[in-house]
Order: sequence, then structure tokens, then C-alpha cells
Amino acid sequence: MNNEKMSKGEMNLNALFIGDKAENGQLYKDLLIDLVDEHLGWRQNYMPQDMPVISSQEKTSESYKNTVNHMKDVLNEISSRMRTHSVPWHTAGRYWGHMNSETLMPSLLAYNFAMLWNGNNVAYESSPATSQMEEEVGHEFAHLMSYKNGWGHIVADGSLANLEGLWYARNIKSLPFAMKEVKPELVAGKSDWELLNMPTKEIMDLLESAEDDIDEIKAHSARSGKHLQEIGKWLVPQTKHYSWLKAADIIGIGLDQVIPVPVDHNYRMDINELEKIVRGLAAEKTPILGVVGVVGSTEEGAIDSIDKIIALRDVLMKDGIYYYVHVDAAYGGYGRSIFLDEDNNFIPYEKLQEVHNEYGVFTEQKEHISRDVYNAYKAIELAESVTIDPHKMGYIPYSAGGIVIQDIRMRDVISYFATYVFEKGADIPALLGAYILEGSKAGATAASVWAAHHVLPLNVAGYGKLIGASIEGSHNFYHFLNDLSFKVGDKEIEVHTLTNPDFNMVDYVFKEKGNDDLVAMNKLNHDVYDYASYVKGNIYNNEFITSHTDFAIPDYGNSPLQFVNNLGFSDAEWERAGKVTVLRAAVMTPYMNKKEEFDVYAPKIKAALQEKLEQIYNVSK
Amino acid sequence: MNNEKMSKGEMNLNALFIGDKAENGQLYKDLLIDLVDEHLGWRQNYMPQDMPVISSQEKTSESYKNTVNHMKDVLNEISSRMRTHSVPWHTAGRYWGHMNSETLMPSLLAYNFAMLWNGNNVAYESSPATSQMEEEVGHEFAHLMSYKNGWGHIVADGSLANLEGLWYARNIKSLPFAMKEVKPELVAGKSDWELLNMPTKEIMDLLESAEDDIDEIKAHSARSGKHLQEIGKWLVPQTKHYSWLKAADIIGIGLDQVIPVPVDHNYRMDINELEKIVRGLAAEKTPILGVVGVVGSTEEGAIDSIDKIIALRDVLMKDGIYYYVHVDAAYGGYGRSIFLDEDNNFIPYEKLQEVHNEYGVFTEQKEHISRDVYNAYKAIELAESVTIDPHKMGYIPYSAGGIVIQDIRMRDVISYFATYVFEKGADIPALLGAYILEGSKAGATAASVWAAHHVLPLNVAGYGKLIGASIEGSHNFYHFLNDLSFKVGDKEIEVHTLTNPDFNMVDYVFKEKGNDDLVAMNKLNHDVYDYASYVKGNIYNNEFITSHTDFAIPDYGNSPLQFVNNLGFSDAEWERAGKVTVLRAAVMTPYMNKKEEFDVYAPKIKAALQEKLEQIYNVSK
Repeated sequence: MNNEKMSKGEMNLNALFIGDKAENGQLYKDLLIDLVDEHLGWRQNYMPQDMPVISSQEKTSESYKNTVNHMKDVLNEISSRMRTHSVPWHTAGRYWGHMNSETLMPSLLAYNFAMLWNGNNVAYESSPATSQMEEEVGHEFAHLMSYKNGWGHIVADGSLANLEGLWYARNIKSLPFAMKEVKPELVAGKSDWELLNMPTKEIMDLLESAEDDIDEIKAHSARSGKHLQEIGKWLVPQTKHYSWLKAADIIGIGLDQVIPVPVDHNYRMDINELEKIVRGLAAEKTPILGVVGVVGSTEEGAIDSIDKIIALRDVLMKDGIYYYVHVDAAYGGYGRSIFLDEDNNFIPYEKLQEVHNEYGVFTEQKEHISRDVYNAYKAIELAESVTIDPHKMGYIPYSAGGIVIQDIRMRDVISYFATYVFEKGADIPALLGAYILEGSKAGATAASVWAAHHVLPLNVAGYGKLIGASIEGSHNFYHFLNDLSFKVGDKEIEVHTLTNPDFNMVDYVFKEKGNDDLVAMNKLNHDVYDYASYVKGNIYNNEFITSHTDFAIPDYGNSPLQFVNNLGFSDAEWERAGKVTVLRAAVMTPYMNKKEEFDVYAPKIKAALQEKLEQIYNVSK
Repeated sequence: MNNEKMSKGEMNLNALFIGDKAENGQLYKDLLIDLVDEHLGWRQNYMPQDMPVISSQEKTSESYKNTVNHMKDVLNEISSRMRTHSVPWHTAGRYWGHMNSETLMPSLLAYNFAMLWNGNNVAYESSPATSQMEEEVGHEFAHLMSYKNGWGHIVADGSLANLEGLWYARNIKSLPFAMKEVKPELVAGKSDWELLNMPTKEIMDLLESAEDDIDEIKAHSARSGKHLQEIGKWLVPQTKHYSWLKAADIIGIGLDQVIPVPVDHNYRMDINELEKIVRGLAAEKTPILGVVGVVGSTEEGAIDSIDKIIALRDVLMKDGIYYYVHVDAAYGGYGRSIFLDEDNNFIPYEKLQEVHNEYGVFTEQKEHISRDVYNAYKAIELAESVTIDPHKMGYIPYSAGGIVIQDIRMRDVISYFATYVFEKGADIPALLGAYILEGSKAGATAASVWAAHHVLPLNVAGYGKLIGASIEGSHNFYHFLNDLSFKVGDKEIEVHTLTNPDFNMVDYVFKEKGNDDLVAMNKLNHDVYDYASYVKGNIYNNEFITSHTDFAIPDYGNSPLQFVNNLGFSDAEWERAGKVTVLRAAVMTPYMNKKEEFDVYAPKIKAALQEKLEQIYNVSK
């Protein structure tokens, strides 16, 4: 066994993917077959005295052969369908759309391997090996967030992790009322308003002190179905992902309790607006259940200033106002590894570039991370819970989401059994399903995430480097777009980018020079999307693929107005169109960070776009 | 392409598993490598003009080699851990515990293969191939339930599917109130009580007729956070799985709205008690949100009489009472395939045994399905929604749950977008995530389930035969246990089974003859479990493995009393002990149906149990 660390900056990302041209395909197959053989040997050697039930004779029977052929026919159909109708996310430089790319070879292998045992992490008994791995992954998540006494686990996806975060907030917020009903001495002398504004830590301390009354207090919490409307408003950025509406619906507080907070021109939550809303609600004695900060918004890759959300809370606490903070870092969560050294310390900002150079996080030494983004990531340690999706910036195959909580005691608030169902010593729940939203869950997912975390540690030596490659690739694309324009027939088509990306997402538009019709520009960009997606025929033949989104006034208010004005459209035109359609590239490819590689693809992308524009404008070459 | 049906009864189940001794290991590897090669070729041939980014030179670099070695070390650790701490579910005849066995080879292969593309079925755009497969699987689920206009989809697990079922019920039940608020003419002249007892079909018809007001009506439904306490009680069998408590907590109706319905001595819902509860609530004008019938309870494999739950509803409707029915067939759902002919017709009971003989569903022609179980399965077609888990009796790897709805229009009740986000013609949602509880989800899961359904159709020719093997195996085990006794030192140890199994689960106890101390018997059975599980050391060396459960008075009332009395314990002793600990075998092995195979294992099991009992009683041989 070799647990030696690799040397600084030595991690070679090109060894960890199958490769855009299957360069490591043979390595993948060799490792895969070795693992499968190890599994098969395990089957054979469990009670070797037992004879096989499937005889050699049976394997020559007609029914066996026909059944095998039938299975092969089905697999052939699957193969044909997959190859015809799948998206080439593996390409080094032709896919610039959704948050997808190749996934990590060790994760694929670990999943395939562990799947042969089919452990179920709902219960330790059904999956001792992978339950242990999930517990370790949970603590790795907690270290990633700099939580001292945290815990985490794998969730099927980010929507469910957000729902679980809201479940935590809802049940915690209702506990002081429940204490007042069950054991009033715990909260003696507190007004209802004080009960509704008690910091989470204080609530957890009180619950811990309640000892034998914990179950009764929990029974009087929001889980009883009571107090759901009294516990206040749930504040989410205006650009709210529909999963937040769904979560409020499901969890029973209801859509009417969700309040959107406007975003600024960088698509980050506007903290002044947040303060105004909170103070306005407090003035009418409406409490705030919680505030969601987004680290890596799905449409813009924007990073909310978590530090400012927390700082505002500190200020408001002096006025007796408290809110739970959940960070939706489904997309950006793994990005925190770019700020951690190999001992899990958050690197001081002034040392960051030096450390990044040392570890080769960026290929160009001038690349750096903005102070705003740094501060936002740093402050995550002060939030109560975080959504983080391994299947996004973790480069792990679907389905692998995750949630992390700041205080391990919080899990008692949503659990269905007393803490004695933990294995003695191991500190692993005997029935994980009683502590989480889900039930049965693949042990293979835990193996897959565990493999990735142990090949690529969650710091600058591992994931930091991979995410650095992704960010640098996005910067290359961003600068490329900024210099791009086309001549199509007698039209000049310009390209404009939305913002300087906070993370690795680049939004952009095509604009016909001199045309001040925003509706027409929206149509042009939608047409580009159609030609750069499955919409217009076979995607396997498509030389450039992207995604798109709409920023419409009902969701975005006037946040896009500055961008729209800068493009030359009037306020009136913005009102008339009611939205702006943008193209969107979550740049996850790990290969486009190197300038020389990007420069190979740049002219190919340009040519592909030229061709699409000519098709749209119906110009023959 | 070969789409010919196989001949009747020709399906050879032994060709569809890797095998307890890896008998089909080479076949598995061959098929796996063929598929991987097909994927690698696809990568290479997407834009063959692009050169590889990973050069041959780089692959000889030190950092590449070190990174590969580092990855191999991590995979070695995973391999060691998996082989040390996994449960031998693959064994033909030594694992008699949880609802696990080998999984289907075509599903493993399809998952491994599709995973290389990593499609995300949240959106059609991210997974055209596997989104199509999931849509087909959904319709296959609907056919399995004999729903004429149904729909279904894959869910991460049964707990979430149950939660989604409750979400449907909650939102639907609240709609008449919402209509009264938004468009009162729709429900003109109806009293509040009538609004709370409107049949689901009538609600869906009204909603459909509301046209442009649908969004506004939905906004006033339970999703607003209002009306959650008024819509009534959720009735679940007394043996309620904790997932139902969790679901009531999460969905916001609250635990206080959950009412347990007593079960009878066969652990099926007691319909007389159900009627009493419903009429009692109705008398005090408390509505019934819904009733859950369980098809295959987790601890007993009991099948509630869905037919009687539906028949009672028909009777009550005459008195103006209506309840939503959700069938929790997470475990037993696939069992319905044993009743369907190759044209999806539900086979008449009098023809069932003949058809089963024709298709070789059982190896012994005397095996049959009871009328009660038949009637329960038949009536599922009249329930509003059903949970069905492919990762249980579908023999598909985790995580793959599912839900089916009777009326496809129901999905509008929980959706977040208008129906125009369906692809034209295809009838597949462009954004499935807006119609379901979850968000991102592995396309590979859909490929895995699709592969299984297409190798093994959901009728007597396919799954019926596999599930028949499982049921027949359980009967072999049941009869074996009924004849079993041990001599340990000077003690005689008897074995008693709990009930004649409804499905494929056998619960049983060891009892020291002449000992009328129930607490001691409970301890004995817990000790047997310890020795037959991971609790006492390395599971790989364990020659017989089982699981256990407790039937305690707070959950079960006196349902176990008849069993306990028959064992010779008094009512007073039952009260004193407060519970009975039983051993539990979900018999999923596909190999123990054949008498000659079972007879090979019977003496081995007996010897292993003898040894465990001697260890427990500390008797040296």
C-alpha cells in the first residue's frame, strides 16, 4: 500500500480521464478487467466447497444460447441508441454548453467495480465497505468547508440536497416554539420574536441540554405539521433556480413564503436589497427562516457574496434578527479546494498566487482569483449548510449530489431514531436512511466519490488543479469571444460576453451590428442555439455545441439592463422585448487551459460558427 | 436487429446473471469489453480530424506514470475494502436476509456502458438517448399496472417515490379549495365537505377544463403553503415503514396527520378497522387525504388487500367520502408481471396455473398464487399511484426506484412549467426535472432498467418467471424451516415460521423447547442474527447469513399475539416482553426454486445453524 503524497504540482490530469480521443482507453480497459477479475475471484472463493449451480451442460443448451442472443440484441439496440443520440461531452474543444465534460476514470472504475456487489448505503449492514466510504466522504466535505464539527453525506442530486437544507432550516427554526410547549424552562423569559430569531448554535445547545425530552420536543417541531407559516420567509436570489420553488412547495412552507432578492449587474445577490427586505419584514414582525446564497449560479456561474450575507447577519443580530444561511454550492462547491493547502488550511489571499504557481494550478502565472470570489468562498465556513454536487465540478458521473452541515448535532433535528442506532465506536449510523431525506442508495456512488477524493485530494494539490484548468479554459474562451466577429453576406455579426466570469461559466450573445431590434437579436441567438444543439439534427456531426438561456424580466428584473444598454438597446427596447436570450458555456473541459491546445480549436470553432451563421442568414458560400 | 419474441417458457434465467460462482464471468467480460470498445470508437470518431490532446510522449512522462500509479493504489485500496467488507448476496443458497441477490447482467452492462456518456435525464437536451428510454420505461410501468392513460418515471428510491406519491395526493386534494378561490364557478354549489371528498378523476377533469386559469389555481393549491391541515388524515398500515413518517414530516402535513391502521394476524391492513377509522373521522368532519396499501411489506412481505381498500372506497363514495389510494409496492410491484400475459392482459384466475405451467413460471406444477394475493394485485389498476422499485424485485442495481400514476394529467399538479415544455410530437418533457421531485439523474439508470425490461418483458414470459423462481425458492425455504429442529447439548431447539408467505419473504424464530420465557427467546434469536451477520466478525467466512426484525407493541399492537400464543407464550408474557424478535429472509435468490439445488444447500444451512447454536449455547462439539 502506498499512501505517500505525490510531489507538489505533480498530479497529471491527463492520466485521469479516458481522453477526448480515448487516448487512455486501453488503460481504462486494463484496469476495468483487473477489477472485474478481482470481483469474480471473490465470488468463486466464497465457500469454494459449493459447486456452481449453472452447469457447463446447461450453458450449451438451446434456451441458454437463445437467451444470450436475445440479451445481445437488446444490448446492441442500446449501443446503437447511445451512439446515435448522446452528447459528445468528452470532446476537448467542441462542447461549450452545460456543466458537463468527461468524468474521472477512477470514479467510473470504482462505480463499475462496486456495483458488482450492489451495496445499499441506507444501512451499514447492507454495505459495510461503502458505508464507511460515505462516512469518510462526508467528513471530507466538512473539511472542504472548514467545518470543525461538521458532517455530510451523498445525496442523489442538488435539488434534493437543497430540499434537505430547507428541511433542516424549517425544523430547527421551529424548535424554540416546541421547547416552549414541552419544556418551557429551556426558553424562559424569551418573547415569541426572540424564539423566532434564536441563532442555530444556541438552539442546538438547548436541544442537547434537553436530554430525555428531545423526542418530545422534536414531535412538537415543524415535523408535527404546525408552525409552518409562522417561522418566516425563505429568501433566495431573484435568479432563483426552479428547484427552490419546488423545495418550498414540497416542504410545506409554500411558495408564498419564498421571497426573491434582486441581483446586481454581475448577477450576484444585491446585499443592500437583502438588508432592505430583511429590515422591512422585521419591522412588521415577520421572521426570516433563512437566506440562500448561491455559489455558482446555473445560468451565469455567479458567486454570491456569502461573506456579506454573513456580515449582514452579524449586524442584524445586534438588532435581534437572525436567519439560517444555506449555501447552494451545487455547482461551485468543489471550487473551495482551490483555496485549501494540503493541511486543509484556507490559504491567505496574499499567498494564493504563489501557492497556485507552486502547484501549477494555472498554466499561465498571471491567472488569478478575484478578492470578491475569495471572500465568498472563505465565508462558507460560517453558513449552516451547503449543497455540493460531486456530479458537477467533482467530475464524477451522475447521480452524486451532496450536503454538508456545520454542526453534526443538526442531524438529530431531522432524524427518526435516537442516537443509539449508531454503531459503537465507529460513529457511523447503523441506519443512515433515518438521518437523511432518502432511503436506499447505491454504495457504488460512495465508492465513486471516494475514489475521486483519494486520487485528487480536495485541495490545491488535487481538485484545485482540475478546477483551475476549468477556470483557465473559461478565460481562454472568454477572451476568444471578446475578439470575435463575423462577416455573413453583407452583415457584420459581433460577439459580446455578459460578464467577466466569477467562476468558469461564460455567457455571450451574437449581435448584428447596427440592428437595434432586441427581439431580432434574441431570435438570432436562439437560432444559433438550434444549430449548435440537438435541435437541428444529428449531434454527432455537429462541430460546435453550446447551450442557451433566457433572462426575462419576471425573473431577472432589470439586472440585464446594463448589459443590454451597452449593446446599444434602449430601455424602451428592453421593456418591449422583455428578455434577452444568451448563449451559455459552462467550461468544464479539463483540456482547454493550455493556450496551445485552445489555439488549435479556436479556428475550428470560428469556422463552425461562421457556417451556422450562414445557414441562419441563408447565405451560400 | 432481432425483435422476435422468444418461445414460450424458453427464457433461461441462468443466462442472465454473472452466477454464484461467476459461471458467466467470461461472458460478462466479453460483453463488457465489446461495449467499452464501441464507446471508445465513438469518441475517436467524433470529429476524426481533431488530433488527440494527450500525446504519446506525455504518457511516458514521470508525472503521468506517477499519477497512474497513484490511481492504482487508490483502486487497490477500494478492491481490498470491497472484498473484505461486502455481503455475499450472489451466493445461490447461503444468503437469506435482506431483499438482495445478484442483479441482472444486462442491467449491469447497460449501466456501465451508458455511464461512459454520463447523460443526465433531468433534461432531454442532456440525454436524448436515455431520456427516451426513461419515457419508455415509464409507459412500461403504466402497462404493468394496467393503467390505460398512465405515466411513470424512475426515482432514486422508494422513500422518494412514496414522498412523491404523498406530494401528488396533497396537491390534488387541495385543488378544489383553490378552484373555489380562483374560479368559483368550477365548483359552484359544493360544500367544503364535498370539495374535500371529490374523486381524483373529477378534480383532474375540472382542472383540465379550467384552461388559462390552471397556473393561478395551482398557485392557490397546497403548494402555496395553505390548507395543509384541512385536507385531512393520511392512513398507513400500523406496520408503517419509517419512510412514511419521514414523508409526512417533509411534505409539511406533519406526523400528527398520520394515522396507523391496525393489521391482522397476517400482517395485512385490517379492512374493518380501516372502515371504522374512516367513518369515525368522517363523523367528526375530518377528511381522509389518502390511504396507503402496501404490496410487499418490508418486514413480512405481506400484501395488503388493495381490492378491499378500493371496494370500501366505492361503498363510502355513496356516503360522500373519498380518499386517494397510493400503493406502496416498492418491494412487490414487479410481482404484477406474474399475472400478465404477453399482450399485457391480466390473466383470469382460473387460467393462471395453466399459463404458469405453459411458461414454466414454477418448476413444480403444484405451486400457485392465492386468490387473496391475486385480487390485491389486480386492484392496483384502480389506485391513483404506485411506488415500484426496480432495485428490489426488478433485480436491477441501486439506485433505481420508480413511481407510476394512473392519470398522466396528474403530473400537471406538481409541475413547474406549462405543458409547452414538451417536445413536439415526442411527448417527452424537455425538462423532466420540472415534473418530478428530483433534479439531475443518471441516464445510465434508465439504460439499466430499460435493458432489463427488454430482456425480460414485464409479463409471464419474462419477469414473471424470475419472480416465480424467487417465490418458489421462498416456499422451499419455508417448508424446510417448518421441518427443522436442533439438538444443542441437552436443549431441543425448534424452528417456527411466522406466516405462510404472501410473496417471497419468510419470517421465522428459533425457540428452546419448554422455555416459556419470551424475553429469552428474543435474546436467542438476536444471538442467532449476530452469528449470522457482520456483527460477529468476517462475513466472507460466514456460512449462513440472515436478517432480523422486532415486532414491538408500539408499532404492531397485538398482531403478533396469535403467533406468540401458538408458540406457547401467555398473553401476560407477551405484555411483559413487549415484542417478539424474528429472523427474516427475503428470498430473492433466483437459484433456489429447483428442488434439487435447494436440497444441496439444505444440509449445509442446517449444519451452519447447528454450529451457530452451539456457539450461542457455548456447547463444544
